[in-house]
Formats: sequence, structure tokens, C-alpha cells
Amino acid sequence: MASVSSPKGTRDFLPFEMARRNYIFDTIKKYFKLFGYVSIETPAMENLSTLTGKYGDEGDKLIFKILNSGDYLKDANAKDLEEKNSSLLVSSIAEKALRYDLTVPFARFVVQHQNDIVFPFKRYQIQPVWRADRPQKGRYREFYQCDADVVGSESLLYEIELIQLFDNVFADLGINVTIKINNRKLLVALAHFIGEPEKLIPLTIAIDKLDKMPLEKIVEELLSAEFSENSIDKLKSILAIKIKKEDKGINVNARNISIVKEKLTQTAEGKKGVEELEFILDEVEKLKLKHANLLFDISLARGLNYYTGSIFEVIADDVQMGSICGGGRYDNLTEIFGLKGISGVGISFGADRIYDVLNELNLFPTTSLENTKLLFTNFGTLEESFCLEALRQTREARISSEIYPDHDSKIKKQLKYANDKQIQFVAMVGEDELKNNTITLKNMASGEQLSLSLSQLIEKLK
Amino acid sequence: MASVSSPKGTRDFLPFEMARRNYIFDTIKKYFKLFGYVSIETPAMENLSTLTGKYGDEGDKLIFKILNSGDYLKDANAKDLEEKNSSLLVSSIAEKALRYDLTVPFARFVVQHQNDIVFPFKRYQIQPVWRADRPQKGRYREFYQCDADVVGSESLLYEIELIQLFDNVFADLGINVTIKINNRKLLVALAHFIGEPEKLIPLTIAIDKLDKMPLEKIVEELLSAEFSENSIDKLKSILAIKIKKEDKGINVNARNISIVKEKLTQTAEGKKGVEELEFILDEVEKLKLKHANLLFDISLARGLNYYTGSIFEVIADDVQMGSICGGGRYDNLTEIFGLKGISGVGISFGADRIYDVLNELNLFPTTSLENTKLLFTNFGTLEESFCLEALRQTREARISSEIYPDHDSKIKKQLKYANDKQIQFVAMVGEDELKNNTITLKNMASGEQLSLSLSQLIEKLK
Repeated sequence: MASVSSPKGTRDFLPFEMARRNYIFDTIKKYFKLFGYVSIETPAMENLSTLTGKYGDEGDKLIFKILNSGDYLKDANAKDLEEKNSSLLVSSIAEKALRYDLTVPFARFVVQHQNDIVFPFKRYQIQPVWRADRPQKGRYREFYQCDADVVGSESLLYEIELIQLFDNVFADLGINVTIKINNRKLLVALAHFIGEPEKLIPLTIAIDKLDKMPLEKIVEELLSAEFSENSIDKLKSILAIKIKKEDKGINVNARNISIVKEKLTQTAEGKKGVEELEFILDEVEKLKLKHANLLFDISLARGLNYYTGSIFEVIADDVQMGSICGGGRYDNLTEIFGLKGISGVGISFGADRIYDVLNELNLFPTTSLENTKLLFTNFGTLEESFCLEALRQTREARISSEIYPDHDSKIKKQLKYANDKQIQFVAMVGEDELKNNTITLKNMASGEQLSLSLSQLIEKLK
Repeated sequence: MASVSSPKGTRDFLPFEMARRNYIFDTIKKYFKLFGYVSIETPAMENLSTLTGKYGDEGDKLIFKILNSGDYLKDANAKDLEEKNSSLLVSSIAEKALRYDLTVPFARFVVQHQNDIVFPFKRYQIQPVWRADRPQKGRYREFYQCDADVVGSESLLYEIELIQLFDNVFADLGINVTIKINNRKLLVALAHFIGEPEKLIPLTIAIDKLDKMPLEKIVEELLSAEFSENSIDKLKSILAIKIKKEDKGINVNARNISIVKEKLTQTAEGKKGVEELEFILDEVEKLKLKHANLLFDISLARGLNYYTGSIFEVIADDVQMGSICGGGRYDNLTEIFGLKGISGVGISFGADRIYDVLNELNLFPTTSLENTKLLFTNFGTLEESFCLEALRQTREARISSEIYPDHDSKIKKQLKYANDKQIQFVAMVGEDELKNNTITLKNMASGEQLSLSLSQLIEKLK
């Protein structure tokens, strides 16, 4: 007998889960559209060469490769095959792979269709991605990404609008959030300021952990990565900003900016970073966010090294969890595919984590289950005929409705079906109703029963 | 440099294509929900053993297999590897595969979640599937299927409702269609009637081609499959029904049913088939279809051998093209996964073909492109600040809007951007407007310009 489960690390979505997921996606999509982003889709498969080398060595290993169809061993590299070299053999037996994220396929899309799109190009994309990660709680091998990007403009107005977009989405979802912002240029300036300009990557990796571990641990990590004592002291003087972030009654962003301005503007890049950050913070303050808190956080680093300017992260205030959104500006994304000088900025919503937050805080609307509203009973041939015509008319009136499929079942069984499916109303038609050309409408929650004509019933439920 | 195209046989969808595809999917989804079907999703990957053997030998070859991650050669079957036996080696280096259709994963889903769902279970599912077919015009390696099924009931009311569902969808889309119906039991009875009960499969394959080739060709095919002359004569007497289908002024279905009733009811199965068909045709005639034509066609066979009762196909009347939808009843689908006695009936919309029909007949609504409605110009720092606040308010009023990203560009360039993106309105704010606190609103189609306050502008565009 064949296996009866989906592969490990993957999930089926039942109707109630789909309804909740759609509630999240529909909310996000509404604001994508309102802000002028248009939808695209790319195929699940990309040429393996499109993906390889874009996510680091660890990333490459996590890409799912698709076996060439037909006699794939015919063109397999003989030496790799003989030596049983799995990683080298891949390139001769697997031409295609499943997309690992939406960003690289989007870069490929922009280059391929550069003559068919209008720049600045504002697109959104909601599709699954696949990673051969070890499955564990909250980590899946298939999950949806939900991205919006603008490419072809360096304008900081897009940073501002993406912050507003976060604000609108989470106001609608009712989740209290802090949007953290930083700028890669400031991290470069920071490495310069502490006298370790060559160690940008280990520096950012280390300080990115400040939310998860104490400063001493991070200092240890930096020491073992051969940062000098002096450099670490200088770093601490900057990170003090962060540690004081709980300060009440002062404008934390203004205070932190002023400290950074004092220390990180010796280089042109540092100056530029402060300028960009200040412009964004000032404009957002003028425009006012309706729900979210915007916080400049010098320790925010984001793992992806393709970011070159602003970086974002969104944290849910009332739940202990990693970031639920991320994003940033990149200047060189399409360059790997031969198109230079296209700056872009984008954000990504973590739908699975947002689902978990809404679930944990009990914030899903109870009406979010799309479902049949009305069930017609079925007590016999004549009753069935009457109900089929009534059903045609309730559907014509846009009331989601159905009929119980058999007329040999007892009323109890039919009501149980309505109950199990959480159908709100049952339209009962028996001998009496047939005679009087009426319908008995039962409200399943209250138990209330009304005798109505079909047009009254439609009027009531429409 | 990496490749800059999607793999052959796959497609990117540009915004205008997405808008058109969403128009189709949204229309279908609207009726799925109205008829009480709820949405589920299954993962792109299934265990290879779930899929193998379900689509015939040819189908098995067209399943895309996913290479095991890590050192996949370590556990490869040594003998298969040495003999370079591509097809045998698959099972030891690829555990997972991409889904080939939505039906088998749905059967697996029903068995796996049988205790979490309410029977009869009415579900719809719109997701891509993958087939390693040779790519050609109109045939893709990735395409969406769009299915609705009810499982767990033998009631013919579901056949009736699925016919009504087809009717509603195509009425909305404005496509004239013929819904063809037949019953597998009648095909079994037909094989019996012509004295070739063992040759059901070649018989159905042959007569299924009647729409594409002349009767003589089909007779040749049957002769070479060793059908007797006598059996072919008997077959012709039945197929005469079909050839006369253009007859005007008579009830074709009633006439054809009466012929079939006369000749194909010697067996219990034939009787049952006629009964089922008659019930469905009668009820649909009473309820009346609003747009489609329902035609009983004894030559309709459908390739898939898992059908056991009613079978459907939808043909677009005004376009030369194969069927745009299909479906039917199956009694044993979940049996392969160990769950017996679950009858089901389902339909599938061919979204790509429906797209082509709408395109060819010019039936796409012109408003179907979801797009920015209003662009704010950007002529300088003060103007930009003014427009950012105005933009915040137009978005608050649910008007899809954006701002031109730079204030160093000429008006001509900004209007060109609006024009290229087919944005309907441009809100222009220069020195005069700033002074008077007004906005000049330009209608891009008519060229008309109005001087308005922000609240007037919002009132006008809302």
C-alpha cells in the first residue's frame, strides 16, 4: 500500500487553516495594491545555474534539485559517477531546482523582462519556496514567502512607504509591532570606527545576536574572532545606545541618531548612512504611523549580505518570537544576471510566524472561515425537487448554500451534518411546508425557527 | 554569467497576465464558495511512492523526481548504479516528487485527514502541477489545475450541482459552452451490446476521437484492434445518435436517451447508467441552465480510467479547441490508500485554455488590470512633503496611489511614467498649488484638468 502522509517537513492545509491563511494574505495584498504594487509569478523551477552561488555554500546545499527526466545517467559525468561524488554529479544529472526564495527569481525576472516592465518597477509576489532544511517545530521545507519590492530607483520615499505599509498591515491585523530600522552603511562605518574595517561580516553576525544573548557572550565571540580589546571597548560605547533603548520619556531615535552622528560620520559612507536614516525617520515622524513603533537599532544587521542601505525588521511586541518581517535596500541584485545600476528595496512578510502570533494572541476574526451559510434538508422526492429550485434561487442571490445529498436520512443526521460543518442556517421543508409553500428556517446557534416564504428567507440571509 | 531565462516549458507571469489569470480564478472561486466548497492546499512535493503507479507507465515517466538532499549516492542501489539503470536507480536516490495532478494528492489527503473532515467533503483546490512533457505550444511543464470534488456520497445531486456550477462560471465569463455528459456504465454496456465486453479500453479510446477524425478512420482503428465486422456495425447504429446531433427542432437528449434505453439496457449496469443519466438530465431541465447547453454524448469517454459513473466535458462553442473542462464520478479513488467505499465526483477547469478562449474572443474586461489609480507628481522638497501627506490620506481613503520617486525630473518624464503604467489620474502640485493649498488633477485619458482641494479629490476618486 502506498504511503498516506505528506513528506516530512511539508504540510497540508485544512479548510479552517486555509481561511486563516487567506485572511493574512488578503490583508497584506490589499495594502500591496493600495500602495501601487502589482502582482507577478515565477515558476517553481529555475535553472540550477540561476540559483547556485547566490545563497552561500550552506544555502546551496539546501536547494532541492530536480532529477533530469528520461535516461538521466546517460549524460552523467563518468568520473563523478565512479567516485560517487554526490555534490559534483548534481550538475550533470539535475539541470533544474526548486526556488529557494523569491528574491533571486525576481532578479532573474527583471533582467529577462527588462523591456516589458516600467521602472521603477513595483511588484509583489506571494508563492511557496522550498528548502532542504532539517524539519523542526516552526521550520518547514515548503513555506510561502510574501514579498514586495521596488527596483530601478534610489529614492528613499520607497523606504518611507514600506514602513507605512508595515504599519497599515499590522494595524489591520491588530498586532502591536516595533519596526526596527538600521543602515548597512552605518555598520560599515562602525567597523571602521572600532578600527576593524576588514571584519564587517563577523562584526555584524555577532551584534545581530544582541537580542538573544548577553553582551559578555558576544564579547567572547569577538575576542575569539581576534577583535582587539580596544575595538571592543569602542564597540561597547556605541552599543550602549541599544542597551538604553527602554528609556522612557525621551525621543530614543533622536538621542541615538545624535550619538551615531557624533561617532560614525568620519567616513563618507557613514555620513551618507546617517543622512539616509535621518531623512526617513524625520519624514515618518511628520507623517505619523497609526499603530507601529519605529525604532532605530544600530545592532540590527540582517543576515543577507546583499543589502547595501536601509535594513528593516518587524518584531511583535506581545509575543516572544524572532522577527516576523524583514527587508532592506540592495544596489547590486540584478548585476549577477548582467544588469547593472538597478537599485532596489524590498520587504518580506513571514506568513507562518504571523499566523502563529495571531493564533497565540487569539486575534483571528471568528468570521474568517469561508463556509456554507445555508443547508436545505432533504426528506423525500417531492421535498428534494422543491428544495433544488429554492437552492438555485438562494445561490442566484449570492447566499452560499447547499442541499443535504440523500432523502433517506433522519432529520437528526441532517442537522448533525450542518452542525459539524458549522453551517449557520438550516432550511427545512417537509410535507406541511410543501403544502403551504413555506420554508422553516432554523438558526443553528440560537435554535430559533421561523416560517418564511422563499423570498423572505432570501431577504433575511442576503 | 548565470542563465537569465526560466526553464523551458515554464512561464513567468507579468502583471497584466496575472490580472487576467486572477479574473478567471476569482470567478471560478466565487462559485466554488457559493456552492459550499471549501479550500484546501497540499504540498508541491509528495512521497514518490504516493504518485508512482497512479497515472500508467507513460504518466510515471512524466513525474518530476526530486533528488535526495545531502550525499544521495551513499544509499544508492549499487547494482542499479553500476548498470547505469536510470529508471531503477530513481527509487534509491529520489524519495520525493512533484505532484502530477491534484486528484491523487487529494485522495491521499482524504485518507490522511479522514477524522478531521466532515463527509460528504466538498473541497476546491487551485494549485500548480508539474509534468515532464515535451514543451510545445499550449503545453507547459508547470500549469495550474483548478478542481472541485465532493467525496463520501453517491448522490447524483452533486452531478446536478456541478453542471450548474459550470453554467454559472461560463455565464459570468461570457463564454458560450456545451457541457457534454455521458456515463461510464453506458460505455461498459456498449462494449457488451456490440459483443466485445473485453475490449472496453480500446473501444473508448477509439470513439473518444470521433470529434477529431472521420468515422472511417475509427473503423479502421477498430478493425486493426480485432473488433469483428458485426460488432462495428452494431457500434455504428449507436454512434448514429452522435452524428445526428446537429438536428434542429427536436429534443436531442430525449431522442438519444430513448435510443440508448432501447439498446443498452440488457445488462444491470446499462440500466443503472441510463437511470442515472435520465435523472440528471430531467432535473437539470426542470431547473434550467442560464447560459450553457447540456448534451448527452455517447461517444464521450474521457481518458482517465478511474471514472465509474457520470463523465463531463465542456467545449467552447465559438473557438476551435479541445475541451476546456472535464470531470466525472469515481468510486474507488481512496481505495489505493486503504480507504474503501468513498464515492466521489469532481470537475476540473482548464485555466490556460479558458485564458486562450477569452483572449481569442476578446472577452477579458478592460478593467481587469489591478493598477495604481493616482500618481502624485514630485517637483521639489516642499511639494514632496505636501504630496506625501496627501498620499497618506488618499491611501487612507482606499485609493490605490503612489508618488513619483524623484524631484529632479521634468513634468514630461513624470507624465510618461503615469502613461506607461496606465495610471488614470495624475495629481500635480507645484508652487501655485502649494500657495493655494490645491491640487491640479489631470485625467490622463481625456486630458481634462481640475483644480481641487484634497478632500474634493478624494471624494471624486473614491
